[in-house]
Amino acid sequence: MPEPVVVDAMGGDHGPAETVGGAVLARREHGVPVVLVGRAGEIRAELARHGAVDEIDVVHAEEAVPMGERGTGGAASGASSLRVGCELLRQGAGSALVSAGSTGAVVSCAIRGVGRAPAVLRPALAIALPAVTGGATVLIDAGATSDPTPEMVAQFALLGASYARLVLGAADPSVGLLSIGAEPGKGNRLTRRVAELLPLLPLRFHGNVEGHDVLAGAVDVIVTDGFTGNVVLKNVEGAVRAVLTLVARSGTAAPEALREVARRYGPETHGGAVLLGLSGTVVVAHGSSRAATVARACAVAHDLAGGGVAARLRDHLTAEPVN
Amino acid sequence: MPEPVVVDAMGGDHGPAETVGGAVLARREHGVPVVLVGRAGEIRAELARHGAVDEIDVVHAEEAVPMGERGTGGAASGASSLRVGCELLRQGAGSALVSAGSTGAVVSCAIRGVGRAPAVLRPALAIALPAVTGGATVLIDAGATSDPTPEMVAQFALLGASYARLVLGAADPSVGLLSIGAEPGKGNRLTRRVAELLPLLPLRFHGNVEGHDVLAGAVDVIVTDGFTGNVVLKNVEGAVRAVLTLVARSGTAAPEALREVARRYGPETHGGAVLLGLSGTVVVAHGSSRAATVARACAVAHDLAGGGVAARLRDHLTAEPVN
Repeated sequence: MPEPVVVDAMGGDHGPAETVGGAVLARREHGVPVVLVGRAGEIRAELARHGAVDEIDVVHAEEAVPMGERGTGGAASGASSLRVGCELLRQGAGSALVSAGSTGAVVSCAIRGVGRAPAVLRPALAIALPAVTGGATVLIDAGATSDPTPEMVAQFALLGASYARLVLGAADPSVGLLSIGAEPGKGNRLTRRVAELLPLLPLRFHGNVEGHDVLAGAVDVIVTDGFTGNVVLKNVEGAVRAVLTLVARSGTAAPEALREVARRYGPETHGGAVLLGLSGTVVVAHGSSRAATVARACAVAHDLAGGGVAARLRDHLTAEPVN
Repeated sequence: MPEPVVVDAMGGDHGPAETVGGAVLARREHGVPVVLVGRAGEIRAELARHGAVDEIDVVHAEEAVPMGERGTGGAASGASSLRVGCELLRQGAGSALVSAGSTGAVVSCAIRGVGRAPAVLRPALAIALPAVTGGATVLIDAGATSDPTPEMVAQFALLGASYARLVLGAADPSVGLLSIGAEPGKGNRLTRRVAELLPLLPLRFHGNVEGHDVLAGAVDVIVTDGFTGNVVLKNVEGAVRAVLTLVARSGTAAPEALREVARRYGPETHGGAVLLGLSGTVVVAHGSSRAATVARACAVAHDLAGGGVAARLRDHLTAEPVN
């Protein structure tokens, strides 16, 4: 029996009403073992509505991190559900954490509160961006590690490929290195060194890609450092908003068509963000997630944890095991 | 009498037919001294059409760089008009260079062929991106120096502010540092150090900005390293293309409205790119430029050269003069 997926009951716009329902669904429909963390009284009241009080364990945490919280202050301090959830992972009492809290708060809390997985140098945030071709491209690292070494970025590529296999169903995902020219010699010091490492790894290295390739669907995975990745992720959001504003001003497009495009590229849509490389996988679900979405996030988290994405790295890269 | 602006007669989609006409206009309408570089026979034939054979000097160069050229090979080799133009700047026989050639070729040729201006550590590429508010934001460095030190980025901020004063008419331009969080401590090692330097400089430092601020018009100048800036510039192009494709597929928007938005953010629109910090200013005009656009580019180049943008840096930053 694997360790359960820890569900942050207090995260998200709807709180326990949807997160508890999601946990119940995850257990009943997907067969995923779960444990709920948050205010025990509120959680048990919701469990009772589903007749599931005896079915799912609850770990009490007095505080909740407000949705606006950036994670620099209260997120990691005190007995928040997020903090207690991360502690369960660190102790090995949970295999993964699912939260619908704000990405920044969850990521910074997890990096501080959960230990690194063996053989992994640093964690990376993966996000599946919808491609204009209809598929998706995994962007990794989207903001977890802002000053990685070339070896860390090479590991991110392996983590991203494993993630693409699982969530995109890509059997042999292609990996592009984000740089500033398609030719191998182009880039900065970091990317030029990464470009030498990637061909040595067990992955399909496509070569360099550029900023205009991020949404073009040319590769399954785009790997970069967490600084560039985060700038790019937010730049996509801003550019989408700007273009839709300009098109709307022309008065010729149907508002619902524009809203649909906006939804695809919204700040926390892209199917959620996943923090890989810690001793438990952390999945950040959309803040507005309803029960069914929380349940799917639990299933993804369970699969990622079971797939041993991080453990497999040990065979491929030399790295000092970290407790 | 200042040194003339050197016009690459062979650059651009239309070649001498438009570049020579632009040079004639620059001299007659804007009072800008110019010299044309390229195949002397073709240039003189065009000058004759304008009755300007005795009005503008011509420097012969046998070769032209094809528009598709990325600048890694032929651009800088041989006696191309671009190479000869850069040599004129290096010798001090020209104050600035205007080319409608491809940005990559012009920038790489100029970095190799033109010396740095005194007190400037490295050159930077500035591009004015249209903001959704109606104004524009100068992005610097958009791809000239991919591994700058913090001191170099701080200089880019000063160059960008000078450029914003000249082309945006901003009396006291605000400068934002591109990073991954609004708080001062956020960023990578480079940006955290730059954030310490910028408040010490004679410019209005707005603080950190993020990827979603690039097109929002919140600041007049966004400063970053040439790697991140180039990724962002191309990412904007790609995101604009992706959104317009999706909106067009909805079939509800007027095609001409979408084309208008596409034009605003096209690969070489944004009013052209300017390479600052060399011993002559280099202005890259749009490849499809007609005579009037070439003439305006000459006027901007002349003003930039006359404004001593680079020379003013000497008062603000300690740096070893470079020949």
